[in-house]
Amino acid sequence: MIRVVLLGAGNVAQHLYTALCNQTSVEVIQCYNRKGSKLHPDQKKELVTNTLTELVDADIYILAISDDAIEEVSSNLPFTNRLVVHTSGSVPMDTIHSSNRKGVFYPLQTFSKDKTVDFSTIPFCLEAENEKDYNLLKELGVTLSQKLYKISSQQRNALHVSAVFVNNFTNHLFSIGNDICSDNDIPFEILHPLIRETADKIATMNPDNAQTGPAIRNDHKTINRHIKFLSDTTQKELYQTLTKAIQSKYGKKL
Amino acid sequence: MIRVVLLGAGNVAQHLYTALCNQTSVEVIQCYNRKGSKLHPDQKKELVTNTLTELVDADIYILAISDDAIEEVSSNLPFTNRLVVHTSGSVPMDTIHSSNRKGVFYPLQTFSKDKTVDFSTIPFCLEAENEKDYNLLKELGVTLSQKLYKISSQQRNALHVSAVFVNNFTNHLFSIGNDICSDNDIPFEILHPLIRETADKIATMNPDNAQTGPAIRNDHKTINRHIKFLSDTTQKELYQTLTKAIQSKYGKKL
Repeated sequence: MIRVVLLGAGNVAQHLYTALCNQTSVEVIQCYNRKGSKLHPDQKKELVTNTLTELVDADIYILAISDDAIEEVSSNLPFTNRLVVHTSGSVPMDTIHSSNRKGVFYPLQTFSKDKTVDFSTIPFCLEAENEKDYNLLKELGVTLSQKLYKISSQQRNALHVSAVFVNNFTNHLFSIGNDICSDNDIPFEILHPLIRETADKIATMNPDNAQTGPAIRNDHKTINRHIKFLSDTTQKELYQTLTKAIQSKYGKKL
Repeated sequence: MIRVVLLGAGNVAQHLYTALCNQTSVEVIQCYNRKGSKLHPDQKKELVTNTLTELVDADIYILAISDDAIEEVSSNLPFTNRLVVHTSGSVPMDTIHSSNRKGVFYPLQTFSKDKTVDFSTIPFCLEAENEKDYNLLKELGVTLSQKLYKISSQQRNALHVSAVFVNNFTNHLFSIGNDICSDNDIPFEILHPLIRETADKIATMNPDNAQTGPAIRNDHKTINRHIKFLSDTTQKELYQTLTKAIQSKYGKKL
């Protein structure tokens, strides 16, 4: 049985709590957050504390808290030499205070408050200072997901930058598509199947091979018509920058 | 029974041919392409021609040919006052020569040569000069898909620009994510679930409400760390332009 103490009350903490409570080989023995809030209506009030000095003995302490709070909270823990991990995609492992053994337990997914999370499809990026701690994190991870990856802090930083491109920036392109549609009385749902296909394709195809469109075809006529069509300065600039980026990437290969 | 003559031999022509041949209320009575190639191994050779003057009488002539060829091929058709439609997302209906009745039958999806196409999930954008022709296109469309939309040439142009953003440009962001991963020995598959979730989200959520990440949070610390991390000039420029675009869009709303 892995005894876990979970710190935090945000989306990740709540989803992790629910998922870990369903595992027979894991017990969430205590939760901490500043307000002392329950993470689930069924949670017993006495298992939640808002006082770090009340933290009980556990195998793993999971800091599912905001990036900025990791350094401070970890340095205020009232014990030493225990395994303390954070769940952040962008904070180096060494940000955790050295009084304890450090690790990372990072589920790579976007979490929405109201949407149930199926952890079994979510990749976990694991990191620890020694093999024994790494194996314990793996043992915890495998109760939730089959997709466990050993990722260093440096790699996790690269992964986080990639995630900004494929998630945050991609969503902004969807939002531009949505704006252009609504400006022209077109239901955005017309584009949903294309968006789904674009995302599905990369599961079986390298994105370089999946690249299509006027930029890679060097179709100046269409590119110029599109640029002329766009009246919004920011949209126009993005169209030109992305077109240039595609042409410079594939131009090099020709 | 709708009698169709299909012109062209590319991806769209081939997928449309296969799909239309499976419909009981449609008959593809002839195909034309410059090489006189069969569109399917089972097609009878005598139903294919490479000579426009040999085209037989039909209810609809579908020009599933390259954008640049639409004007020329349509002006060389050896008949008048018949319904001639193209399948292009970016060519105005009026590019078809005026000697015939014009229309558009545009399936909005990316087609790969080797991947079977399920037309039932694909939106068709229809346009015609009069109601009778429009209804005939609708009758043809409904044999393939339930998603039929009346879209003018001007709207189709807007839709095409949107499609470049949500498909071509999005795929380029995937390709950057892939490049950053392989430069750091990270398997790109770690990002597949995030990519799928990003695309799935917009089916139930306006992309403006789904926007997350350091740009919209105004998280300068993370943005600066990411920009410092990116050594490729084009990737750096894209990161900055997209971050600025997100901040200018949501900054206005605050």
